[in-house]
Amino acid sequence: MKIGILGYGNLGRGIECAIRQNEDMELAAVFTRRNPENVKILTEGVPVYPAEELENMQGKLDVLILCGGSATDLPEQTPSYAKYFNVIDSFDTHARIPEHFDNVDAVAKESGHVALISCGWDPGMFSLNRLYANAVLPNGKDYTFWGKGVSQGHSDAIRRVEGVKDGKQYTIPVEDALAAVRNGENPELTTRQKHIRECFVVAEEGADQAKIEETIKNMPNYFADYDTTVHFISEEELKEQHSGIPHGGFVFRTGVTGWEEEHNHIIEYSLKLDSNPEFTSSVIVAYARAVYRLSQEGASGCKTVFDIAPAYLSPKSGAELRKHLL
Amino acid sequence: MKIGILGYGNLGRGIECAIRQNEDMELAAVFTRRNPENVKILTEGVPVYPAEELENMQGKLDVLILCGGSATDLPEQTPSYAKYFNVIDSFDTHARIPEHFDNVDAVAKESGHVALISCGWDPGMFSLNRLYANAVLPNGKDYTFWGKGVSQGHSDAIRRVEGVKDGKQYTIPVEDALAAVRNGENPELTTRQKHIRECFVVAEEGADQAKIEETIKNMPNYFADYDTTVHFISEEELKEQHSGIPHGGFVFRTGVTGWEEEHNHIIEYSLKLDSNPEFTSSVIVAYARAVYRLSQEGASGCKTVFDIAPAYLSPKSGAELRKHLL
Repeated sequence: MKIGILGYGNLGRGIECAIRQNEDMELAAVFTRRNPENVKILTEGVPVYPAEELENMQGKLDVLILCGGSATDLPEQTPSYAKYFNVIDSFDTHARIPEHFDNVDAVAKESGHVALISCGWDPGMFSLNRLYANAVLPNGKDYTFWGKGVSQGHSDAIRRVEGVKDGKQYTIPVEDALAAVRNGENPELTTRQKHIRECFVVAEEGADQAKIEETIKNMPNYFADYDTTVHFISEEELKEQHSGIPHGGFVFRTGVTGWEEEHNHIIEYSLKLDSNPEFTSSVIVAYARAVYRLSQEGASGCKTVFDIAPAYLSPKSGAELRKHLL
Repeated sequence: MKIGILGYGNLGRGIECAIRQNEDMELAAVFTRRNPENVKILTEGVPVYPAEELENMQGKLDVLILCGGSATDLPEQTPSYAKYFNVIDSFDTHARIPEHFDNVDAVAKESGHVALISCGWDPGMFSLNRLYANAVLPNGKDYTFWGKGVSQGHSDAIRRVEGVKDGKQYTIPVEDALAAVRNGENPELTTRQKHIRECFVVAEEGADQAKIEETIKNMPNYFADYDTTVHFISEEELKEQHSGIPHGGFVFRTGVTGWEEEHNHIIEYSLKLDSNPEFTSSVIVAYARAVYRLSQEGASGCKTVFDIAPAYLSPKSGAELRKHLL
């Protein structure tokens, strides 16, 4: 299976690493909108091309993995490239998924390619767990918690505050809320009761720290609805202690069964990830195998993780899977 | 969707309860090998027929759910009835799944029906989680823990001991082992280090309790390889405190990503179930929907949970799923 990567940031690099763990895959080329000479990749002997070169790659890639952002890149890139390739993206703006799906589906159906959108862990593995658990326990309640992990959006928001040189924000589930759900209490939880936000901020020299803290804590949408703590630290400490990109979270469904709804059940799925982009990449690469196989079978159109039978993700045969994993 | 149930024990009754939670399903009839007059079901107006009556039901059931045991019933029943119906079973003798699959597949392909085997939570939801996690983290380690829950097989083994009137056995995961896995320590665990076995025994009057305890603790396969505790209690206490059939467990995969395998990830799936048979039934009923749909699409042959795209399990449309659960 020959894989192409468009975009070589954290996600692109993660895809490159994940391909190396899968013997049936090969990284064919990396494509970039930057000057290819400035893009040093890890795999020896693999070319880096300008994005425009993709025009000449038809028939040379089995799957093209799009590693752009959801805000502006993917809404444009995924439909464009589905014209020429089987593609996968990690489009994660939940509210705009239906629109994105329709745009991609029209192109992929016409061109006869398979396009998988919104792949990763949320949307992705978390969505799968919500779906399975909802189907199994129709009479129940869903809870999703995120963290502990770095939120890129919230870290960016901190960095836009006047007087802030750099910063990182951790989203952390509230332990008592987790415990109440796990304990089968079916709590009604407000935004504030579910997550806390912890900020590590490097202030500019001479900046008014009290004012920075107040500005962050009162920022609408991002922080105002949460219990937020702000720690001022040095640039060195930020680099040493907070340069990772960990993340994770929990998906619960609690539900009842029985003639009188007398029995309670709790389904819990959780992830604890040292590297958010590398785990996302690992999910995408497993699904690249599925996309390739579906395409080989003659399928076309836009898909999500909901539409793909699990066996397609594994390099093992059906017989091997039944013998060893069932 | 018209569902038939063959066998009305704990599982059959669980199926009946689960059907009631799914508006697109209807219990058409219960079939039994006992005298139908002695089988009182919960749903009003639904007939109970002798099993032989199934011969006359072709075309009247969309899916027949087989609620027999894995030891002798299902190896015979599932291939037999796949000749006439779409069927689902919960065959759970892991080692014999490949053979059972082949037997069922041959019949189902020839008759043009869809047969789903080994549905439930292990095999079933646990298997799915093993497969997804293995595909996503190819470089890693699997752990499955069961419990806290009642093991029917071990309870039966206790009851066969001389001097034992009744008994229940709980399989319990060792907390330290769970913690070590969750902590990313990738421990190598022996059988004894993973689970403990707790037995509640009602002794016959005048029986030698010390001898019973010794016999249980040294029983090969069942108890000898475990730390086992034996509590002698009264018949009343057994009935009051230990008449439920709870179960559950944990599936972990720990794995590494990154160019130098420098990042660790932990995927954990767990179930905490008040009623093992009712949860198993809920899984089976969700898959009955999938079997029916696949059959409508013209599919045939034997399937497992690995072969079925998640969207087939839900009564919601693809668009609804993408909007609300992705």
